[in-house]
Amino acid sequence: MSTDPLVIFTPSGKRGRFPVGTPILTAARQLGVDLDSVCGGRGICSKCQITPSYGEFSKHGVTVHDDALNEFNEVEQRYDRIRGLKSGRRLGCQATVQRDVVIDVPPESQVHRQVVRKAASARAMIMDPATKLYYLEVQEPDMHEPTGDLERVARALKDQWEIEGVTASLPILRKLQPVLRKGKWTATVVLNKSHRDATHRILDIHPGFFEGRIYGLAIDLGSTTIAAHLCDLRNGNVIASAGVMNPQIRFGEDLMSRVSYAMMNAGGDQEMTSAVRDAINTLTTEIATEGSIDPSQIMEAVFVCNPVMHHLLLGIDPVELGQAPFALATSESVSLDAAEMGLTSMNDAARVFVLPCIAGHVGADAAAVALSEEPGKSEDLVLIVDVGTNAEILLGNTERVLACSSPTGPAFEGAQISSGQRAAPGAIERVEIDRATKVPRFRVIGCDLWSDDEGFAEATSSTGITGICGSGIIEAVAEMRIAGILDPKGLIGSAEQVGTPRCVMEGRTHSYLIYDGTAEGGPRITVTQGDIRAIQLAKSALYAGARLLMDEMQVDTVDRVVLAGAFGAHISPKHAMVLGMIPDAPLEKVSSAGNAAGTGARIALCSVDARRAIEKTVREITKVETAIEPKFQEHFVNANAIPHATDPFPHLATVTSLPVVNYNQAQSGAEDGGRRRRRRG
Amino acid sequence: MSTDPLVIFTPSGKRGRFPVGTPILTAARQLGVDLDSVCGGRGICSKCQITPSYGEFSKHGVTVHDDALNEFNEVEQRYDRIRGLKSGRRLGCQATVQRDVVIDVPPESQVHRQVVRKAASARAMIMDPATKLYYLEVQEPDMHEPTGDLERVARALKDQWEIEGVTASLPILRKLQPVLRKGKWTATVVLNKSHRDATHRILDIHPGFFEGRIYGLAIDLGSTTIAAHLCDLRNGNVIASAGVMNPQIRFGEDLMSRVSYAMMNAGGDQEMTSAVRDAINTLTTEIATEGSIDPSQIMEAVFVCNPVMHHLLLGIDPVELGQAPFALATSESVSLDAAEMGLTSMNDAARVFVLPCIAGHVGADAAAVALSEEPGKSEDLVLIVDVGTNAEILLGNTERVLACSSPTGPAFEGAQISSGQRAAPGAIERVEIDRATKVPRFRVIGCDLWSDDEGFAEATSSTGITGICGSGIIEAVAEMRIAGILDPKGLIGSAEQVGTPRCVMEGRTHSYLIYDGTAEGGPRITVTQGDIRAIQLAKSALYAGARLLMDEMQVDTVDRVVLAGAFGAHISPKHAMVLGMIPDAPLEKVSSAGNAAGTGARIALCSVDARRAIEKTVREITKVETAIEPKFQEHFVNANAIPHATDPFPHLATVTSLPVVNYNQAQSGAEDGGRRRRRRG
Repeated sequence: MSTDPLVIFTPSGKRGRFPVGTPILTAARQLGVDLDSVCGGRGICSKCQITPSYGEFSKHGVTVHDDALNEFNEVEQRYDRIRGLKSGRRLGCQATVQRDVVIDVPPESQVHRQVVRKAASARAMIMDPATKLYYLEVQEPDMHEPTGDLERVARALKDQWEIEGVTASLPILRKLQPVLRKGKWTATVVLNKSHRDATHRILDIHPGFFEGRIYGLAIDLGSTTIAAHLCDLRNGNVIASAGVMNPQIRFGEDLMSRVSYAMMNAGGDQEMTSAVRDAINTLTTEIATEGSIDPSQIMEAVFVCNPVMHHLLLGIDPVELGQAPFALATSESVSLDAAEMGLTSMNDAARVFVLPCIAGHVGADAAAVALSEEPGKSEDLVLIVDVGTNAEILLGNTERVLACSSPTGPAFEGAQISSGQRAAPGAIERVEIDRATKVPRFRVIGCDLWSDDEGFAEATSSTGITGICGSGIIEAVAEMRIAGILDPKGLIGSAEQVGTPRCVMEGRTHSYLIYDGTAEGGPRITVTQGDIRAIQLAKSALYAGARLLMDEMQVDTVDRVVLAGAFGAHISPKHAMVLGMIPDAPLEKVSSAGNAAGTGARIALCSVDARRAIEKTVREITKVETAIEPKFQEHFVNANAIPHATDPFPHLATVTSLPVVNYNQAQSGAEDGGRRRRRRG
Repeated sequence: MSTDPLVIFTPSGKRGRFPVGTPILTAARQLGVDLDSVCGGRGICSKCQITPSYGEFSKHGVTVHDDALNEFNEVEQRYDRIRGLKSGRRLGCQATVQRDVVIDVPPESQVHRQVVRKAASARAMIMDPATKLYYLEVQEPDMHEPTGDLERVARALKDQWEIEGVTASLPILRKLQPVLRKGKWTATVVLNKSHRDATHRILDIHPGFFEGRIYGLAIDLGSTTIAAHLCDLRNGNVIASAGVMNPQIRFGEDLMSRVSYAMMNAGGDQEMTSAVRDAINTLTTEIATEGSIDPSQIMEAVFVCNPVMHHLLLGIDPVELGQAPFALATSESVSLDAAEMGLTSMNDAARVFVLPCIAGHVGADAAAVALSEEPGKSEDLVLIVDVGTNAEILLGNTERVLACSSPTGPAFEGAQISSGQRAAPGAIERVEIDRATKVPRFRVIGCDLWSDDEGFAEATSSTGITGICGSGIIEAVAEMRIAGILDPKGLIGSAEQVGTPRCVMEGRTHSYLIYDGTAEGGPRITVTQGDIRAIQLAKSALYAGARLLMDEMQVDTVDRVVLAGAFGAHISPKHAMVLGMIPDAPLEKVSSAGNAAGTGARIALCSVDARRAIEKTVREITKVETAIEPKFQEHFVNANAIPHATDPFPHLATVTSLPVVNYNQAQSGAEDGGRRRRRRG
């Protein structure tokens, strides 16, 4: 009795015995080894490259001979000739088992290799996107077995990819027959899988093996800004990021003013719906240009947003969200055709997925933060604060997760600030004030130098210095407090009191001058008393929301804090704590997570399982309604002061100097071969 | 130990024991007794009326006392006061079990009571339409359990109707919140159930209990005529029928000329698609007017059609159907939104269901005939012939069913006939020719009198006598043969040969005069030699198709024949056999089924189970392709003659005199309370 040869895969260590002649790809699939393949093992896509290890491998307990696989075959020779195959590499679908063998799967042949590196944490992102390409060989029609072309496509998907429950829309039915004949009964279908059931819909079909790529958008639709990432749906890489202001701002800066606008003006909700959809269409075109792709390659868009944005995006009147009991039209996730909601800049058949809402005031953006930061998997008690015009706040651990939303207003996004602006090149994002001289230095987005570094003027000549963004204003106010320019109540002292001519009387209060570019025709950037008040209101609301959750959890302290924000730059934990945005915690336990909601959107874009998971998670989260909780108001009033008179953590200065992070680089992972761009929040 | 009271339902005989206080409706549901209810047992809809039988019932083995139910309660008193309740009746949702009781469910309280009476057969139609109304009491929103309104509607459907997997489109999400509040947290939803899986989609939602009705269209889309029935989706009653010519005729009379038109003209398929959709939109508006309903009450349309019509309806280029191997774009049933295919005259959310096709030349119309006539359930071998521009032919029994399609051309629908017209008021539908005098008498659609009856002229003064329809021309030609006006080759004799001045020389051949209305400005209706040739070609194709199936089945005779046709009037079996349309069979074994394809469409409209059944049935049918079968041509040539020189069945004259059937009456069942109309085919 002969024994079948043993096949061992590295790095997974999975092993099994297979009959002589079994393709390596088949063996990998049967063992559940992560080996990529788009063409289903036909030697077309070259994604299944592997490296056989010859020689003795005592570690694995087998001796491997150099005839352990079949000889390099014609398909591989042709592929090597035309596109080149690295030395030692074989195609997993062509190489067959002959004797015991050890097979190494290189990183680029692993589907699930993607690592999302964030400022504070790195983790693997499982690639299992809802929308994927599948190459098929379709049976030709036969008069004696008269099934339709669609039914033979469905059978090919079942036989070749184990996919069932396939449906096609009318436009697909219309193009199906010519495409199949053009591709000589081979085709590549773009399939969109429902996370709810086992059904798949065909979004597009291409003749033969489709060399192109398909993309998805992860969109964080905020009250003030709309931030989008364009992702390659094969590997999750972010190939471009872009942002625009939410044009609904002209109908009201905060959520409640927009709800009021809808209530007071007939058709007001539809005006706002049109405005935001137009903006998303423009953003889609822009981001496609920036990523050098055709917008029709965008097959899917995932949205995260607060409930009011959610309803206005979908064209639902948000009036119920403006009054108790704040009933959502729908709280579960929404899947639909992009065309149905007027998103016409992407592929005609593109799909939209909107994450579920947690409650009437706690939206899909909070759900996305929960998906990204996973408080429910944290052993210690974590407070997660996603800063925006509406702050999403989560508190929890493996036992219980609470969530609320707090109306901070747009100050943290640079709006309602005299020199404020959206996080974009030219915006001041970092500020330091010399404790003795009260002279500030700063950095702007798009330049790695500080304003007092040599060459700063030249380096910023293209962008200019245009204003101050959310993270900049937070640092500026905190630094002003540390440098003694502000008193604990938040009042800016006079030039005499503070001892610097940068404090200037304006009306009955004072302003502090950060930068004067008027000599070169630029702006004069100051922090006014009004700016301080706006930040005080915003941070009080944030703090009160966090405290409310802590009350509900019956705790006075948290183990760690995660600060997130959609506005591009990372928030400095030190300055946030000086300002009193968040409850006190050891500074080394405060981390900055960048755009957690946006990351959550990307995760949902890249994984059907994540969509299922977040629907389940959302149902398990305890919602706390700030609007009707009397203690919220109490906490809010008590949080008005700026507590720390002096730098509370001088010994931790190095921690507060965050590394210079290129936003795209951070978001797209270490292995991102895509173009790198300036961050644009 | 006490024993729960026994409840026995009649006429079903179902019985079970239930605790004292159990509502009769609840008991009925648990036993699977067919007792209607729209409001879910809230005393609103009054559909669940029952009659308790008091006194002794030895037949059932129980003694029933007059306190077997609770007393007539307030809800029933109010209902009786406002709308009136028949003496002895109770509302099943209000009456509760107190002691052993026998409950009679009157016919009007049975959901499945509908009987479709056809000329030749009557059978029960199970009402389980895909689209139905459900009354709901929806839980109000609660800040402490912040589910969306849609999710609470879904929960109400689950709790109150055991319906799961509910989805809603954007337009429903948009109207959901105001409707629920207007209805004070009660609503009636229009639900459409998928026959493939357990999912339901909300097509519409009305505040409170919706008093209105919803309707569906069963449409038989033929090459020459489009026939539609408007059905009440609650009970399946046909409330109006209407037909129009298929405007695609201008692109080609038969299927292959339309396929050619699409091949030869860029955009030709789209022209034909627009034409037929426009016609269906017009037909929809007309039939709604005729049925005195608003077109927006039409929530669903079911289509049956041959493959070329199927593709052109869906907007798919039919080019592949014009050449071997005659590949369908899709062979399974198609479910989609009416709006998606430009059917905009019905409800905006209306759904379309197109029956599956059997093969490239054997379409959804043949599937509908199979659904209606059920050859696979026949113990004896039945031949079913659905006569149209393309004839659908089925042969089979419980062991095996064969199907083919035969290109008969439009003659049987009155097209290509000199005085031909669609079956409509004024068209001659019955013809008899006196064997001795050669004088014809006839009947026209819309009038029950024969042309030689007293009062005929007055009775037809409104419609006039406008032409001759399909069933009329079949009878005319057969009668001409029996009366010796035609010879076996199909040649019309001269006035001298035949002995009547009605035979008139026209060119080199003769015509036979049926009616001359020229004196009153009306038409001169003759049967020309060209008409005879057209009928000969058509009947030869029909006969050849039937013979082909018999060859395949290896039989020389069939046990019975069912003649069906979409063109309204019933085909006379005797005349069909004289003509040689069908293989010889004992005349009493030949029945006429009316529009079997249209009936199949109605069955699919009224039953989700039927949709499932026909998808399964279609896969089991053996398809025979006439276009590539050499024997078809042989049979065709051999079938040209008109075999029976004399009336072959003089003793059966009473059978051949079909009863005067009012079309709508026949279609809508004995219990149809709806308005009755003149048939319009």
